[in-house]
Amino acid sequence: MKIAIYGYGNLGRGVELAARQNADCTLVGIFSRRDPSNIKTLTGAPVYAAADLHKFKDSIDVLILCGGSATDLPELTPTLAADFCVVDSFDTHANIPTHFANVDSAAKKSGKLCLISAGWDPGMFSLARLYAASILPDGKDYTFWGRGVSQGHSDAIRRIPGVLDARQYTVPVPAALDAVRAGENPELTTRQKHTRECYVVAAVGADKAAIEQAIVTMPNYFADYDTTVTFITAEQMARDHAGLPHGGRVIRSGKTGLCGEHNHTIEYSLKLDSNPEFTASALVAFARAVDRMYHRGRVGCLTAFDVAPADMSPLKPEELRAHML
Amino acid sequence: MKIAIYGYGNLGRGVELAARQNADCTLVGIFSRRDPSNIKTLTGAPVYAAADLHKFKDSIDVLILCGGSATDLPELTPTLAADFCVVDSFDTHANIPTHFANVDSAAKKSGKLCLISAGWDPGMFSLARLYAASILPDGKDYTFWGRGVSQGHSDAIRRIPGVLDARQYTVPVPAALDAVRAGENPELTTRQKHTRECYVVAAVGADKAAIEQAIVTMPNYFADYDTTVTFITAEQMARDHAGLPHGGRVIRSGKTGLCGEHNHTIEYSLKLDSNPEFTASALVAFARAVDRMYHRGRVGCLTAFDVAPADMSPLKPEELRAHML
Repeated sequence: MKIAIYGYGNLGRGVELAARQNADCTLVGIFSRRDPSNIKTLTGAPVYAAADLHKFKDSIDVLILCGGSATDLPELTPTLAADFCVVDSFDTHANIPTHFANVDSAAKKSGKLCLISAGWDPGMFSLARLYAASILPDGKDYTFWGRGVSQGHSDAIRRIPGVLDARQYTVPVPAALDAVRAGENPELTTRQKHTRECYVVAAVGADKAAIEQAIVTMPNYFADYDTTVTFITAEQMARDHAGLPHGGRVIRSGKTGLCGEHNHTIEYSLKLDSNPEFTASALVAFARAVDRMYHRGRVGCLTAFDVAPADMSPLKPEELRAHML
Repeated sequence: MKIAIYGYGNLGRGVELAARQNADCTLVGIFSRRDPSNIKTLTGAPVYAAADLHKFKDSIDVLILCGGSATDLPELTPTLAADFCVVDSFDTHANIPTHFANVDSAAKKSGKLCLISAGWDPGMFSLARLYAASILPDGKDYTFWGRGVSQGHSDAIRRIPGVLDARQYTVPVPAALDAVRAGENPELTTRQKHTRECYVVAAVGADKAAIEQAIVTMPNYFADYDTTVTFITAEQMARDHAGLPHGGRVIRSGKTGLCGEHNHTIEYSLKLDSNPEFTASALVAFARAVDRMYHRGRVGCLTAFDVAPADMSPLKPEELRAHML
């Protein structure tokens, strides 16, 4: 399978590294809207101008889009679906139906196959929710994120005047986790599920009290959470908060029996040292499935829900049955 | 979807109860090799003689086989595939390739679609192994069972002279779990992964020391484990060990990065009050997928690996994308 990467940020670098771990995968190159001569890749993979992508129409099996969900992907995925089988990690949950419709229509027109919203949430967490709900219809599921770095929330803090750098960790509330795991099916408010820890480097002379106030009262991002703000130095930030760890868990608790007397708990959890590298690894596995399904004649748009798991593995069906079933 | 149950033990009763929880599911009846007039069902579902099954050829969409893997299923699933789409829970891992080949050939001859080895292991645990290995190729996975009742091991103890009743719990070793979760990828022997706890009701006057010795030295079942034997009364057995709880977890730990510097842990865990009722619930969800795939023209034999998760849900694809992705 010949893949290419469009966009060379953290996620694109992750796909570059993931490609090396999959023997059936050849990385044709990295396409960027920046000047290719200014980009040095981690593995020496070639970089081309995004404008030249059309020249590679016949030498790329699956194009992995590594852009942002806010502005890049809604535009790029349907456009590139005209010439390529595309996989993206579109993660604005509320806009998935619209994005799906746009990509599906473009891909059906071009006869290509695309898969959107791959990664871990949406992605593996979505699969965990779907399988668990299908098996335990009389139940309730909960998604907890963290402990991990939320890049969107970190960016929001950085936009506050006087802030030089910031890192925000989302942390699940242990008591909420315990209640869910005990099968109590609690009703939980936003505040009861997660807390937010913020580490902030302030400019010299900045009003720290004002920064803290601006953070904890920020609507949508922090106002509905118990938020703690800790001011640190740039050295501490570089030393203790350089990584992008994340993770979380999907828990479904459900009942069976003559009178619902038996409780069952299904839990799917991830603990990730590098959020972008794990997401990238998932994208490559979904790209494999897209390549196979396309060659079987499938066109249009898919999500993780439409992929038979066997298509994500490099192993043959008989090997999977013999060794993994 | 019209389903029927073949075999009315713990698993068959579980499917009977699961059918009630799925609004798209009608239970046509229960088929048994015992005299139907001697069987009282939990929900009032009708019971028919297994010999009359052929009369229901056109009124059953999916037949769920609830027999044992040792002697029933290897014979029954291929035979019944001549007339029915069949789902079974064949769980003798080593014999899956042969069973698959037999069922596949029978189903291709009859034009039916069957799915074998559904449940949680094989089944949901297999899926956890496959997804995790596809995403993290440079890693290692571990399956831990328990704490839960192993029915095969309980039966083995009951066959020892002087034993009236027995219940065996398989218990994962906490230190092994911790090492795996820490990403240490340890090499673990059988003894290091699980312990076995046995609760035994001995006949009056039986030689308890001899019974204990017979248990802990029993090859294949107990000799390779640290096994504890506790003698209890029939009353204690009935009071404290009436249920069939089980569960376990699949953990894969794998590395990504330029030099494997980032570790990731994926864990899928189940905590089940009733092993047969959970297995039955999974069988019904897989039966739904079989029904849909059959009506799209698929024939032959499948496993969980071949099923797109969306086909297991009663919800429409657009509902899944809007609410679960």
